[in-house]
Amino acid sequence: MIEIRTATETDRDAIWNIIHETNAAGDTYAFDPKMSREEALAYWFGPGTHAYVAEVDAESVGEPDSFPGTATPSPIVERNPVIVGTYILRPNQSGGGSHVANAAFMVASHAQRSGVGRGMAEHCLAEARRMGFRAMQFNFVVSTNVPALHLWEQLGFKIVGTLPGAFHHPEKGYVDVYVMYRSLVP
Amino acid sequence: MIEIRTATETDRDAIWNIIHETNAAGDTYAFDPKMSREEALAYWFGPGTHAYVAEVDAESVGEPDSFPGTATPSPIVERNPVIVGTYILRPNQSGGGSHVANAAFMVASHAQRSGVGRGMAEHCLAEARRMGFRAMQFNFVVSTNVPALHLWEQLGFKIVGTLPGAFHHPEKGYVDVYVMYRSLVP
Repeated sequence: MIEIRTATETDRDAIWNIIHETNAAGDTYAFDPKMSREEALAYWFGPGTHAYVAEVDAESVGEPDSFPGTATPSPIVERNPVIVGTYILRPNQSGGGSHVANAAFMVASHAQRSGVGRGMAEHCLAEARRMGFRAMQFNFVVSTNVPALHLWEQLGFKIVGTLPGAFHHPEKGYVDVYVMYRSLVP
Repeated sequence: MIEIRTATETDRDAIWNIIHETNAAGDTYAFDPKMSREEALAYWFGPGTHAYVAEVDAESVGEPDSFPGTATPSPIVERNPVIVGTYILRPNQSGGGSHVANAAFMVASHAQRSGVGRGMAEHCLAEARRMGFRAMQFNFVVSTNVPALHLWEQLGFKIVGTLPGAFHHPEKGYVDVYVMYRSLVP
């Protein structure tokens, strides 16, 4: 079960861990791999940017302390939510371009291929509609990031632009990048 | 004669006048029309951004003060440069996308159609090559901005993407936006 909610100040460590891990891999986003925690969080929590986290329940059975003379209590089931993904939603441009949303998604490596990305993307599309955005645009989908490409296509995004050699992949060298777009109005 | 040079602190008033005028028109750039002087200049002189100005010589003939007992001096021709345009050059993305340049150009309304835009664009392409960029990308060329479109096509840019209805034009409503791209390597 994935719960997606607005990010708070107390989520900053978990978010930075995911951003840091994603940037270190350097094969999906055009972020500076030396971006500091401070810079990354200033970006993620920037003005006009809505940040969210995805949590899963890692249920743990806690053994409460026993005190002499008390009855043995039953084990307490504690909710122990773990943040496994984060995304941001914001206008892609200002002024005359502010009706088009932009979003960026990151999933912790240990939670890849478990539906977290899809869950966040569906949540994000609903949030964008709720806020009145008329479309959503991804400016920089690296063509070698096949899982992301498939997910966006399944969710109704189309490739509307191809940027030749616009990403330098750590293993594959210069690869194409796609601009993807989908309308949010009927 | 147009001279193009790196912008300095003393150019800030002239640059703001051009940005303010361009934003007020609101038909070419997706900037917030209420963007303040401070915000605009922070953007134009942002980290990693190279800002330039284009000057023309508005020659003026100065009449120096005459002092009794001195010979009548000949009129002094003063150079009186006027800033008529400004542009910025920067990486379009960080990290794996930092080899692609991005640029934005603004020309004062009274100097439109006088070659200032073309002069700045050619200067910009040369600067981008000098800095080692491998390509240049414009993320947001409004399809109704025909003079700009023609200029970019003449300078070797191609439309590599079309964003449907991505700009709300103050008179024409929702219009398409182009992503334009050109290589800078042979």
